[in-house]
Amino acid sequence: MSLDAVLARIDDDLPEAMDRLMTLLRIPSISTDPAYKADCDSAADWLVEDLTSLGVTTSKRPTPGHPMVVGHIEGEGPHLLFYGHYDVQPVDPLELWDRDPFDPEIQDTPKGKVIRGRGTSDDKGQLMTFIEACRAWKAVNGSLPCKITFFLEGEEESGSPSLVPFMKENAAELTADIALICDTGLFESQVPAITTQLRGLLGEDFTITGPDRDLHSGMYGGIAMNPIRVLTKILAGLQDDTGRITLPGFYDGVPELSDDVRSQWQGLGFDHAKFLGDVGLVEPAGEQDRTPLEQIWSRPTCDINGIWGGYTGAGFKTVLPSKASAKLSFRLVGTQDPNAIRKTFRSYLEDALPPGFSVEYRTEKGSAGSQMSIDDPAFEKARKALSDEWPRAAAYVGCGGSIPIAGFFKEILGMDAMLIGFGKDDDQIHSPNEKYDVESFHKGTRSWARILAALT
Amino acid sequence: MSLDAVLARIDDDLPEAMDRLMTLLRIPSISTDPAYKADCDSAADWLVEDLTSLGVTTSKRPTPGHPMVVGHIEGEGPHLLFYGHYDVQPVDPLELWDRDPFDPEIQDTPKGKVIRGRGTSDDKGQLMTFIEACRAWKAVNGSLPCKITFFLEGEEESGSPSLVPFMKENAAELTADIALICDTGLFESQVPAITTQLRGLLGEDFTITGPDRDLHSGMYGGIAMNPIRVLTKILAGLQDDTGRITLPGFYDGVPELSDDVRSQWQGLGFDHAKFLGDVGLVEPAGEQDRTPLEQIWSRPTCDINGIWGGYTGAGFKTVLPSKASAKLSFRLVGTQDPNAIRKTFRSYLEDALPPGFSVEYRTEKGSAGSQMSIDDPAFEKARKALSDEWPRAAAYVGCGGSIPIAGFFKEILGMDAMLIGFGKDDDQIHSPNEKYDVESFHKGTRSWARILAALT
Repeated sequence: MSLDAVLARIDDDLPEAMDRLMTLLRIPSISTDPAYKADCDSAADWLVEDLTSLGVTTSKRPTPGHPMVVGHIEGEGPHLLFYGHYDVQPVDPLELWDRDPFDPEIQDTPKGKVIRGRGTSDDKGQLMTFIEACRAWKAVNGSLPCKITFFLEGEEESGSPSLVPFMKENAAELTADIALICDTGLFESQVPAITTQLRGLLGEDFTITGPDRDLHSGMYGGIAMNPIRVLTKILAGLQDDTGRITLPGFYDGVPELSDDVRSQWQGLGFDHAKFLGDVGLVEPAGEQDRTPLEQIWSRPTCDINGIWGGYTGAGFKTVLPSKASAKLSFRLVGTQDPNAIRKTFRSYLEDALPPGFSVEYRTEKGSAGSQMSIDDPAFEKARKALSDEWPRAAAYVGCGGSIPIAGFFKEILGMDAMLIGFGKDDDQIHSPNEKYDVESFHKGTRSWARILAALT
Repeated sequence: MSLDAVLARIDDDLPEAMDRLMTLLRIPSISTDPAYKADCDSAADWLVEDLTSLGVTTSKRPTPGHPMVVGHIEGEGPHLLFYGHYDVQPVDPLELWDRDPFDPEIQDTPKGKVIRGRGTSDDKGQLMTFIEACRAWKAVNGSLPCKITFFLEGEEESGSPSLVPFMKENAAELTADIALICDTGLFESQVPAITTQLRGLLGEDFTITGPDRDLHSGMYGGIAMNPIRVLTKILAGLQDDTGRITLPGFYDGVPELSDDVRSQWQGLGFDHAKFLGDVGLVEPAGEQDRTPLEQIWSRPTCDINGIWGGYTGAGFKTVLPSKASAKLSFRLVGTQDPNAIRKTFRSYLEDALPPGFSVEYRTEKGSAGSQMSIDDPAFEKARKALSDEWPRAAAYVGCGGSIPIAGFFKEILGMDAMLIGFGKDDDQIHSPNEKYDVESFHKGTRSWARILAALT
């Protein structure tokens, strides 16, 4: 094998690689909207055909929702599983797009060339970096470098309802030595990164009811307990003045950073004043004794995502409402147990309700956080390979968001996952005018070639 | 003068009195809806004509909104001013009415005969009790018993925008020895009452802004201060655990009940468990060291009438919103100063905002509470007169709501006001199927005749 030859081939083949990506981007595979069901199917078909052309034994596998694409190719050395998703977000509001979201084009911008269109960065452009790396490898060496399983999902943007059942039913087939997931980004658009910490998510959506009807505050003001007042007390009590969450046992299972990771994160030179200033904020709001990066990546949170109750129209209505509602989400880390925390939260809430009040819950959503063990030498090999490709050394980073797939690989298949991606902060994923830098696509493909070389 | 003859005349004339009321009720004088402007005018015309027929020199007086009806008749003894309003609330939702709201009828119900229709209780039926008492008096005695000014408003249900300017411009003309206001009710539908305490109202409608756009809680959760969290802390801090409002100086000017009034209120046997139980509540929520009646009638309150922020639709959206909003109202008593309290509240709010946060206020609404001095012997005379008419002795009561007119009479014209009315708790004012008991109308008219006799 010759890595240099593979990299050269990637460089030469870039125009054709982009053409192939364009073809995939033109398929409007919006998974949440039933009107695009046939398009999701077409995207899966296109991938089956493309992988088959690489010698991968690939099939479209039915689920109750959109199909999975699963491919296998035999080889020496470690067994890798690659995960990406071919479905995309809806495009509303369409009027904010500069062009048809499914008629992608390459555009010159002050920051360089970009591919503009829905799914360019999330996740078709990213998943094709890996496939293009494999294509170049095969073109140069006649075969792929190791045993690889391709696992491409079509429901990631609609909550992955079929994922866990499919993984459980096909556990033996999908289990490999390590998983590679390409659905994340560079750190601050600059530093190649392997995401090793993901926060989990616990949602609570509830309504408390006090009086059995709306009351007039002239008649009942003072004597009637107001559900909004009760709700504000409950929510305000969830965090103390230092930003710490007050639920008993909430921090059970929250790990401390290792010295290694702590010093790497310090080396990133994260500018939290700029990060906050860019959105009009001044001071970090999380636990006061934690660094800003810890607050975002490795500490659990409690966020109030929505609140409503009473009269919210124009002018005044002196109503004491019967009900008040809120939506909360807890970002979880380490081995925090979503079910235990749900129980603790609900006890706290119910203990705080005055006599005669009731609560109705509307959700049972919860996933634990995940933290990769980076003891596996594959992590250091991949980090070195990334560092060779990019101007700055790669880092292990955290991710504030939840990518449940990484947890499922660990939980269901016992595999660690390396989350490596090349998205940039300004890619506008899930928003109008999504783009993917040509640099991300090109150097991303080269990165995977280097990682394949390093791991095999 | 012969009171007995007047009362007998009222009894004999009841069918004709109800016919007259029906005529007035058929005019849809909805003041908030411009479509009914001509109808408001017609109601005013009808009253001008009716009062003129009693020998009252009456005219329709233009305002920027709906006209005032002002009438004068000379006489011996004290100078009384009578206030009522001829406009009515809108009728939505129309489908919940059993019949056309402006086609009133007399109905038999298990609790007795009622007049059903919009405005029967609020306030056309009530204002006609006074006019019918005058009519009977004149029929028997040939003239009214004293000098009376009639002052009938057509904008009470739409915030009385013209009232204060009109009173100021015509202060000399409108000033009398005492005002009689007929727009309140019996105590618990049973006990005749003179309302001597009214709470004022201070409204605050505001939005706080933190980050300058909505943020994703995966990226910013923990580090970005959430406006809903800030708002819940602010609102939760307004009251301590004993129900006391925490704003500094808030209780300045809140009077203690006199021993007389306190013992009268104790004598009313108010059943707060039933009052709360009827609407699904268990425990009083106001200041723990105050009786339930004090909480409703004579203590100031802080109510949250509405709250909203973030995502409130179905399912989840892990958003950290840019903004959070609330509507508050404070019920004020005694000499609490709405402007001072607004200032204190805003200082408290603004001090609680994190750096970089801002607040926008949408209102400047405020009126002080009012407490009548019952030292004027007219109060005791009226109370005795009411006690003679009804099975139970009349009481001085408080009223949780705000009737700004009473405060204006005091403030602008230097007059005390006696609030005497005959509405019942189940009259459904402002709601579909409003009614007024024939008993309220009949005994109300007789009550005014007794009061006129007592005061002259």
